[in-house]
Amino acid sequence: MEAEFVQWLRSRVSSSSTVLTGIGDDAAVVKLSADRGVLTSDMLMDGVDFLLGECEPRLVGRKALAVNLSDLAAMAARPTAAIVSVAVTTDTALLKGVYEGLLELADEFAVPLAGGDTNSWDGPFAISVTLLGEPTARGPVLRSGGQVGDQLLVTGDFGGSILGSHFEFTPRLAEALLLHELADLHAAIDVSDGLSLDLSRLAQESGCGALIQLDQIPVSSAARTLATQGQDTRTPLEHALGDGEDFELIVAVSADEAEQLLATQPLSVPLTRIGELIDEPGIWQIDQSGQRRPLSPTGYLH
Amino acid sequence: MEAEFVQWLRSRVSSSSTVLTGIGDDAAVVKLSADRGVLTSDMLMDGVDFLLGECEPRLVGRKALAVNLSDLAAMAARPTAAIVSVAVTTDTALLKGVYEGLLELADEFAVPLAGGDTNSWDGPFAISVTLLGEPTARGPVLRSGGQVGDQLLVTGDFGGSILGSHFEFTPRLAEALLLHELADLHAAIDVSDGLSLDLSRLAQESGCGALIQLDQIPVSSAARTLATQGQDTRTPLEHALGDGEDFELIVAVSADEAEQLLATQPLSVPLTRIGELIDEPGIWQIDQSGQRRPLSPTGYLH
Repeated sequence: MEAEFVQWLRSRVSSSSTVLTGIGDDAAVVKLSADRGVLTSDMLMDGVDFLLGECEPRLVGRKALAVNLSDLAAMAARPTAAIVSVAVTTDTALLKGVYEGLLELADEFAVPLAGGDTNSWDGPFAISVTLLGEPTARGPVLRSGGQVGDQLLVTGDFGGSILGSHFEFTPRLAEALLLHELADLHAAIDVSDGLSLDLSRLAQESGCGALIQLDQIPVSSAARTLATQGQDTRTPLEHALGDGEDFELIVAVSADEAEQLLATQPLSVPLTRIGELIDEPGIWQIDQSGQRRPLSPTGYLH
Repeated sequence: MEAEFVQWLRSRVSSSSTVLTGIGDDAAVVKLSADRGVLTSDMLMDGVDFLLGECEPRLVGRKALAVNLSDLAAMAARPTAAIVSVAVTTDTALLKGVYEGLLELADEFAVPLAGGDTNSWDGPFAISVTLLGEPTARGPVLRSGGQVGDQLLVTGDFGGSILGSHFEFTPRLAEALLLHELADLHAAIDVSDGLSLDLSRLAQESGCGALIQLDQIPVSSAARTLATQGQDTRTPLEHALGDGEDFELIVAVSADEAEQLLATQPLSVPLTRIGELIDEPGIWQIDQSGQRRPLSPTGYLH
């Protein structure tokens, strides 16, 4: 299967000035123009991250690349090249469908596909994408750079991704690069496992706690829809705090720069202040009456 | 499972001056010192590349990294960082065993583990390793650089890897770097699918054919053992030509430089001339009487 498929793939992949040697050698050779590289990898599996029987293969390929682009966004790094490995039965139509979705998004985000590995097996479909990227002149944004007093801003809204956006989300790469150009982002994370859980990770790696204004959390319409469905017992806010796979960004930025960004709203999606980093460890919620109480992070634990 | 395991992994991974931000952020940040990067990825799966019920987990981890190091060797590139993604049931002991084998080889070859992705599922164990490397000053060695008249040299011997060496082989990385320092390697490939099949790929990508002296093929003792076993109907030479997973190198080099290398034998493993690149496409064999006949490449087709 591999030889015929690799031929198809070679013909389908757009050429790129960055990829000096692409698919078909023992390894790919790519052009580098920075002194630091950013590397991220995510593996997605049938039955865990998607159900192949219930979705189009192209959505699977799209998601496999998109989650990695979201990780690069969280570092404010530009993609240099993607490497894709798959384990698949001999279903070439499925494989081509997956790649069509992946390559469509790759073209949209100008990510050259440099190579990978195609394997047949009897097991469920699995795909692993690795992205190499490079930071901007301002350097990569880590989870650990947040400081007490930093304001916590988020892109877009949260909750209810299971209704579709976990497939169709737009990785906030352009947004991250623009924000890091307009301001000095101290820390960032993308929300894959849940807003409150991923926020707790950013705060912890930064050696801080976080104080959240619950009435400021941007709750998606999908979260509201989900909360009214059948036997659902969670509120829209609970969905927003813990559903995960929103793939929106949380960034920590100085109070001055936050004020500027909030006033100018430079992105095509809303930028919202949800709280700030504080000295006291842990995640805290504050309601409209000003009461401060601990908030237990919720989300998807792998 | 992931959080506890990632803690263990962070404590187990050796620090490296190349990895500026390692495991625990959205992506890893690595130091780059060349203007070109080499990227390769291989996914290994239970039931295809190994049988977990019949081998030690550490051998699986070792092999997952080793096959990628073999790909870098085929490019004569030095490893910069490794990214590892796994899909595993909740068997943490298995996962730690796999990583122990991987990290042991990583230490031996000075490959920093920069990050990855750990996933639970009910499916069979799968592991995908991606290596970023950098070529030497002489540049990466491609499959496509061979020229008519180039001599074909191989490291080590071939056949019978199923008896154990497919797990315990040494990636020929040091050998490749030394050869490419001593001579201008025109083309190279590592033998993963079979000596004759991988040779046919190198020849084809170089726009040449290859003429092989069958009596010069270095046949391993494992190939001889295998040929005498039970119902085996193949000769030791047939095993050497088609078994695969030898992870030895085939290099194409000018006649002058080949002569020099063969005379000095600079490696700790034998370097053997098995034939040469010719104008006529295809793979040809020549026997002791000087007769030339077509040779059908054999090996593992994915």
